[in-house]
Amino acid sequence: MAAKLKVVIVGGVAAGPKVASKIIRLQQDAEVTILEKGKFLSYAGCGLPYYVSGVVKEQAELMSTAAGAVRDPVFFQKVKNVVVRSGTEAVEVDRDHKRVLARDLASGEETWLDYDYLVLATGATPVKPPIPGMDLEHVFTLHGVNDAEGIRHLLSQDRARDVVVIGGGLIGVEVTEALVEKGCRVTMVELADQILGMLDWDMAKLVEQHMESHGVKVLTNTTATAFEGEGGQVKHVVTSQGVLPVDMVILGIGVRPNVTLARQAGLEIGRTGAIKVDDHLRTSDPKIFAVGDCAENVDLVTGEPAYVPLGSTANKHGRVAAINICGGDDTYPGILGSAVCKVFDFCVGRTGLTERQARASGFDILTVHSPAPDRAHYMPTAKSLMMKLVVDRQSRKLLGLQSVGPGAGDKRVDVAAMAITAGMTVDQLAKADLCYAPPYGPAMDNIITAADIARNKLSGAMNGITAREAREWLQQEDVVFLDVRSPGEFEQVRLPGSINIPLGTLRGRLHELDKDKPVIAFCKISLRGYEAGLILKHAGFKDVRVLDGGIAMWPYEKVQ
Amino acid sequence: MAAKLKVVIVGGVAAGPKVASKIIRLQQDAEVTILEKGKFLSYAGCGLPYYVSGVVKEQAELMSTAAGAVRDPVFFQKVKNVVVRSGTEAVEVDRDHKRVLARDLASGEETWLDYDYLVLATGATPVKPPIPGMDLEHVFTLHGVNDAEGIRHLLSQDRARDVVVIGGGLIGVEVTEALVEKGCRVTMVELADQILGMLDWDMAKLVEQHMESHGVKVLTNTTATAFEGEGGQVKHVVTSQGVLPVDMVILGIGVRPNVTLARQAGLEIGRTGAIKVDDHLRTSDPKIFAVGDCAENVDLVTGEPAYVPLGSTANKHGRVAAINICGGDDTYPGILGSAVCKVFDFCVGRTGLTERQARASGFDILTVHSPAPDRAHYMPTAKSLMMKLVVDRQSRKLLGLQSVGPGAGDKRVDVAAMAITAGMTVDQLAKADLCYAPPYGPAMDNIITAADIARNKLSGAMNGITAREAREWLQQEDVVFLDVRSPGEFEQVRLPGSINIPLGTLRGRLHELDKDKPVIAFCKISLRGYEAGLILKHAGFKDVRVLDGGIAMWPYEKVQ
Repeated sequence: MAAKLKVVIVGGVAAGPKVASKIIRLQQDAEVTILEKGKFLSYAGCGLPYYVSGVVKEQAELMSTAAGAVRDPVFFQKVKNVVVRSGTEAVEVDRDHKRVLARDLASGEETWLDYDYLVLATGATPVKPPIPGMDLEHVFTLHGVNDAEGIRHLLSQDRARDVVVIGGGLIGVEVTEALVEKGCRVTMVELADQILGMLDWDMAKLVEQHMESHGVKVLTNTTATAFEGEGGQVKHVVTSQGVLPVDMVILGIGVRPNVTLARQAGLEIGRTGAIKVDDHLRTSDPKIFAVGDCAENVDLVTGEPAYVPLGSTANKHGRVAAINICGGDDTYPGILGSAVCKVFDFCVGRTGLTERQARASGFDILTVHSPAPDRAHYMPTAKSLMMKLVVDRQSRKLLGLQSVGPGAGDKRVDVAAMAITAGMTVDQLAKADLCYAPPYGPAMDNIITAADIARNKLSGAMNGITAREAREWLQQEDVVFLDVRSPGEFEQVRLPGSINIPLGTLRGRLHELDKDKPVIAFCKISLRGYEAGLILKHAGFKDVRVLDGGIAMWPYEKVQ
Repeated sequence: MAAKLKVVIVGGVAAGPKVASKIIRLQQDAEVTILEKGKFLSYAGCGLPYYVSGVVKEQAELMSTAAGAVRDPVFFQKVKNVVVRSGTEAVEVDRDHKRVLARDLASGEETWLDYDYLVLATGATPVKPPIPGMDLEHVFTLHGVNDAEGIRHLLSQDRARDVVVIGGGLIGVEVTEALVEKGCRVTMVELADQILGMLDWDMAKLVEQHMESHGVKVLTNTTATAFEGEGGQVKHVVTSQGVLPVDMVILGIGVRPNVTLARQAGLEIGRTGAIKVDDHLRTSDPKIFAVGDCAENVDLVTGEPAYVPLGSTANKHGRVAAINICGGDDTYPGILGSAVCKVFDFCVGRTGLTERQARASGFDILTVHSPAPDRAHYMPTAKSLMMKLVVDRQSRKLLGLQSVGPGAGDKRVDVAAMAITAGMTVDQLAKADLCYAPPYGPAMDNIITAADIARNKLSGAMNGITAREAREWLQQEDVVFLDVRSPGEFEQVRLPGSINIPLGTLRGRLHELDKDKPVIAFCKISLRGYEAGLILKHAGFKDVRVLDGGIAMWPYEKVQ
């Protein structure tokens, strides 16, 4: 009889326990040990913002299975047949003898554990920039359960009225929503010229506007230079835009992969700083796998290394590594950087390449901005959805999609993720047989309409101009900024410098316009604007553009 | 100068106006005429159930653009530059002279209209079976605005307490929900052994249970043989299961394509009874196109002709036909029969092949039943989603998905539609980078979990048994029906004939079971059931199966 398979897993939060469970499912008598530095095990880190806001009431819910069993060491031993050693750090890997040194953090006792396979699921750590005052009380990250408890404690005592969130990434915006719901006044401080670097600037601006409508102050292009305290507690954040009084600071600047053990073991570290793995998730030592937030991925569109640590990827990693460890042959092809977050009433999502990423990767692209209701427009449940597509001109393939608004953007992100994975052109996407009923979508689904706009642009039927380009052009030249909505709509809200000729009257009022002057036509969503553009072009107007995304996606000020 | 393109379109509801609009966008000076028999134009037929229920308040909303403009003949003339002749029937096509005879239904006047291209968008008509009493008052179909007005009128006068809906298809279930919301007592009469033929029997049963929980009486295997009236109004429906008193009858048996004109013109009619078209949507006469509910489609999985009339397809058809008419080259590859409907709190959707269809087409398949919360289980917004996958054993490709439950099934149907279109295997689907955040999905999306279950079955790791097979086996043989949930869960609800050994105690209680007896293990969703099965197999049990879909998807009676 063959010896039992011995696997040691370093890390017990997400990918680690997944590897362990799957190994036991494949080989019931495998000896699997999880070493976890912390005290907690297998908890849903992504749920922490919802624990802070109180949407999730009990910490235990984040550590429970769907059936309500708490995933503690006893659960893992009894149900999964996995040994869990929490409070235990892996301090050294001896690859020659295939063993790892485990240190009990309470007693300091050290033991060598033999392995046939070692799995690194060491996760990531929040970036803490070298800002003076970082060690003051009430300066938190939101990475572990302890952070969440600390924040909740302050909130419960009503001692966190003014909060500054440093960093406008995913965790930053999610925790901001949680804090506002708890009654905090939140200021978000972001170094870059936009929040949510996963989006393009124009899409991020729509999110910023939405956050501001919920009372959040968003300071972009702003550096936090110091935290100042009183009695050891943070009281002021000094920024390049002035001093902000605070009761609490939350850092959401991002995370860095934990690769100390991998480095010590002499494993190859990738260009992104995460542990390099092949498509079987093997590190440079075939007996050592790396999974989850400490492992590097491949971008499926560019083929380049990518680091996007997410729980969804960690779970898939876990399964692939386990299958390979148990003698199977499974691969993890890579990621699209698909992500979604809830920002107050907005669903904000993305997949594939942004315009910025696509240009940086050398693609010759076009973009589509398509705002529309997310279900039949006559249904009271219909909500606005603003999408941006990035399309490769040469291959006509979809490269990326971004989605912002109260509508069901997550659905369209997933459809786009499938299209990009399959290498579909916008022509193919436009014919996709997506399901339709008025409570769930429009007859022409938003993503199909967006694909059709891309096709109109590729064929030359539609000559679009982005809001940014339009604004610059209007400032430099005498351009007709033609709003073809109804007078009633024009009265309510309009773009600076625009004139109004409703589409239905345009054919009869062409004489009012100078054919030699450039025209930018638009409406609320630029469908009527598109039709107006076609009428003008046919009438001999020399330079006609249609404003991408219309008024709905205008990221600048409007006249109200 | 070339002569202007002349196009005559027969039919003004959905596909017809779409063709017209797109032609004008492509060729501003084309002469486009729409002939519409009825009085109404370009209305959203799919919205009628929501007009009946009052969710949509005004008839005009169904006939308006998203911006609120009513799509009447004046709108089409002014905005679209399209001539609309409503109340006008196309009675004869003279293909030799490329002209169509239009009859004004009010005056009886007839005119020949020349065309370069003729487009048939003649739609479909509800099937009216030869039941005596069909012409009684208060017997409706739900096909046009007039039907909806008639139904609303009766409802508004509180004269429709008892309603019988004949036919359990999409329209039948949608109108049933509308009627229950208006306070009616509804009985659904269905000839087949299940409602919603777009689903497999086991999935349809879950929908029937849900409808019954909302007070609807569902009579399957039941024939309506006569309608009996008093004073000209329907008062009884005679069925094979007895006589039902009624104030109103609604027929939702399905529709037949309107092909009279096509037949008259000598165009080829397809095997499904709809007008045969090529992938450019040309009929057997290259100058005549057919679009929408009168045209036949191709099933993308089987390559066979298919007839699934839906508004989503009609719109896409319209665009393809217009592009080809204007000298472009566009194709419509076919359909997956993707469909979704709202049935009270349930979203019911499907795409691709059902188990029944796949077997009939000769595929060697496996099925997966996967129930799970549709977002992170600790989120209060998480709702149950019950999915069934159909997978080809040879190619490992996904062939179809069905989804039932309060959760966001439409999203997973669309993801599956993309996977099937791209010919993806379940292995590829299991690695899809779908977007994840707790408010939108679980870390392992439902469809990824379902794909992984398929992979477990393909690899032999999981030996599933369907509810139907399990029930038959239990009735014939001494099989251990092993529920591995907690005692508390078992107390609440259980399956007839089951015994309870919680998963956590199973390893220690194996001696209580006879290794030679077959075991069917299960839990709520059959994840713990799967783990139990692995433990039993490893312990030497001879015949271990896992109940597909667990208690959640059990379509028979439970003990409560």
